[in-house]
Amino acid sequence: MEILKYPDRTQWKELCKRATMDVTTLFDTVRSVLDDVKANGDAAIRKYEKLFDKVDLDEIRVSETEMKEAESLIPDDLKDAIRVAKGNIERFHASQRFEGKKVETSPGVICWQKAVPIDKVGLYIPGGTAPLFSTVLMLAVPARIAGCQEIVLCTPPTDNGKIHPAILYAASVAGVDCICKVGGSQAIAAMAYGTETVPKVYKIFGPGNQYVTAAKQWVSLKDVAIDMPAGPSEVEVIADASAHPDFIAADFLSQAEHGKDSQAMMITTDLSIVEPLVDAIQKQLEKLPRKSITEQALSHSRIIVLKDKQEIIDFTNLYAPEHLIIQTADYAAIAGQIRNAGSVFMGEYTPESAGDYASGTNHTLPTNGYAHAYSGVNLDSFIKKMTFQEINANGIRSLGKTICVMAENECLEAHRNAVIVRLKTIEQDETI
Amino acid sequence: MEILKYPDRTQWKELCKRATMDVTTLFDTVRSVLDDVKANGDAAIRKYEKLFDKVDLDEIRVSETEMKEAESLIPDDLKDAIRVAKGNIERFHASQRFEGKKVETSPGVICWQKAVPIDKVGLYIPGGTAPLFSTVLMLAVPARIAGCQEIVLCTPPTDNGKIHPAILYAASVAGVDCICKVGGSQAIAAMAYGTETVPKVYKIFGPGNQYVTAAKQWVSLKDVAIDMPAGPSEVEVIADASAHPDFIAADFLSQAEHGKDSQAMMITTDLSIVEPLVDAIQKQLEKLPRKSITEQALSHSRIIVLKDKQEIIDFTNLYAPEHLIIQTADYAAIAGQIRNAGSVFMGEYTPESAGDYASGTNHTLPTNGYAHAYSGVNLDSFIKKMTFQEINANGIRSLGKTICVMAENECLEAHRNAVIVRLKTIEQDETI
Repeated sequence: MEILKYPDRTQWKELCKRATMDVTTLFDTVRSVLDDVKANGDAAIRKYEKLFDKVDLDEIRVSETEMKEAESLIPDDLKDAIRVAKGNIERFHASQRFEGKKVETSPGVICWQKAVPIDKVGLYIPGGTAPLFSTVLMLAVPARIAGCQEIVLCTPPTDNGKIHPAILYAASVAGVDCICKVGGSQAIAAMAYGTETVPKVYKIFGPGNQYVTAAKQWVSLKDVAIDMPAGPSEVEVIADASAHPDFIAADFLSQAEHGKDSQAMMITTDLSIVEPLVDAIQKQLEKLPRKSITEQALSHSRIIVLKDKQEIIDFTNLYAPEHLIIQTADYAAIAGQIRNAGSVFMGEYTPESAGDYASGTNHTLPTNGYAHAYSGVNLDSFIKKMTFQEINANGIRSLGKTICVMAENECLEAHRNAVIVRLKTIEQDETI
Repeated sequence: MEILKYPDRTQWKELCKRATMDVTTLFDTVRSVLDDVKANGDAAIRKYEKLFDKVDLDEIRVSETEMKEAESLIPDDLKDAIRVAKGNIERFHASQRFEGKKVETSPGVICWQKAVPIDKVGLYIPGGTAPLFSTVLMLAVPARIAGCQEIVLCTPPTDNGKIHPAILYAASVAGVDCICKVGGSQAIAAMAYGTETVPKVYKIFGPGNQYVTAAKQWVSLKDVAIDMPAGPSEVEVIADASAHPDFIAADFLSQAEHGKDSQAMMITTDLSIVEPLVDAIQKQLEKLPRKSITEQALSHSRIIVLKDKQEIIDFTNLYAPEHLIIQTADYAAIAGQIRNAGSVFMGEYTPESAGDYASGTNHTLPTNGYAHAYSGVNLDSFIKKMTFQEINANGIRSLGKTICVMAENECLEAHRNAVIVRLKTIEQDETI
């Protein structure tokens, strides 16, 4: 953990750097898998599942029996928790429904937008030691609210050919249509191109390792949309002397335990809180089961003391954190000046873990400074806004000249003619 | 022009194919330019402008004098037209402003979204024979309404080192901050990385040739967001016996004149309108200045006769056209069933050229079937929706158990602890 006191603004860009990997270097590797799945479908999936996940797949698709079995394996407290979280995610994302307004931009010229769900979406849920059932909720619940006709979920099986029951249970609660036992870049290929078993989708969501990320990037170039480019997770905590050191330490560590490439930053103008924070971090760290991962993440994490509030705001807008926690007396005033962040957690009783799981906001957020240009996943991510327009005779008559002059000046005569033939017909009709 | 009568559904996928180029094959070519501009800034820009645009650039940035000169060169009718179009684009995009609602997802847990403009955006406007000033309006007007702090525009100079006055005038009317004489992949690099003269932006918009497209795709992998993947422009016209053959022909040709890789499709159930349409196309084509380009586009354009209305709707949703013109007696009913299209033009007096220039809808739209997952450019394209949440003591107390159970089951102990430390403090405070 690096502690920096009053770094000069010229150093800030360096301080905002993340431990990202250039996944484009993996393109050649993943392309061989992508091309193979595109050409050979299910057979290629089975081959790579045997190679990478050490499993001989019988059925690729999860069966009804497996779904029922999963439900029986989940303890009641987890079932309750998943249902509470689902309800909050549903309430927040349902509030994001979009209703287009009809606008008469000129007399007789009516334009509007209409939100239409993406027909088929694909969700990727990584495997590994911990089952990310929370991500299933974060992606499938808004997809369902948006009205997507088909929700496909791919996740790697364990070596006994099973999927963790919490993932299956969350998928069932959230309304996923089709769950397939496929992981890695072969899963991304399956959803991008379609196989005998895995339906082709139009947009792929979800986290993954560098191979999954590289595969998503590659297929996004021409075959399918993706949620956003991915990088390691990160948090920035803004705190002042009013903040409880144990709270900041806990938030810091809950970010750091995500993975060894995670990053946590604490920004303050109060030098006095640095020592108590470092002590609290040390104390809490000792008790963590994921201590070794967490320590590696802390090694590129930073505590930065800045001169004044303006510097805090400017630094934050430059860093553009995925998660921003503000624990200061004037947290609302600071939050009002943040322009670049994925999700903002305001006040002492709003830990990041609330948003990670259950408050209702989405936890799929822009990392690596992408918050400068990207939103986190939200209802918009599962819809398109199509535009419509309807012009009547009066409308084309009044707007016709404008269109003709512009088309002429762009040397597009047929564009002009599309107006002229209509104006002529209207004139003739009137003469009759 | 191919005429197909009652093709079987199994053939449809083939009929929906576009004449696209795989721009990933150009990555190696454009990367040398991108890397050079990243390393050498303005010097590299000057080098490539000399090489590709045959111009020795004095100043890269357009001066105030050049802006004034441009204004004096524009005829009054074009000025008026640009201002009318700007007004309509402004009215329609201003109606898209987003106001986030505060939602209490659980007692004491408040979540909301807030729209925040992307600080800096870059617009690319191609050079060539026709000055695309309409695209300047389509991109800069919504950027201004969204509240972007800096709007940068790059466009290649002609060989006398000038920019077409209509582009400069449109940029000035729309409120562009900084116009630079740079084209091709060197322009994309300049905006993605920044140079001494060209500001670094966070999102790049606009059309371009295959090198520009390849460069945009490459930088979108890690450095900067882009509007959407690009392909050749296209239109689908749905018509019945009530449609005027001259109108359909004009719309068909106004798409085809865009470029030799453009595609126009006419879909109908009325065999009787095919012959009059072909005649009208032939007649109008003869008079077009861009006849040779248009003919090449027509060579991969299609007239398709289908069995019934359901086939028309299904085919259209599969093709997912960039532009969809519906000229049938029941156009509103058909429009209501379209799920995949960029922009829909309803009724006989609504030519595509209205939307291309002046009705108010955006003309930067998803091509190549991307309308399955992408919206056209709209106000959302220039903002991010950040989420905020504020939880009070009561809120964390009621939601705490849910978070803890979920964190425990995902094996993330520090996430659980971030709630536990808070609950303990609340309990202690209450005991006192």
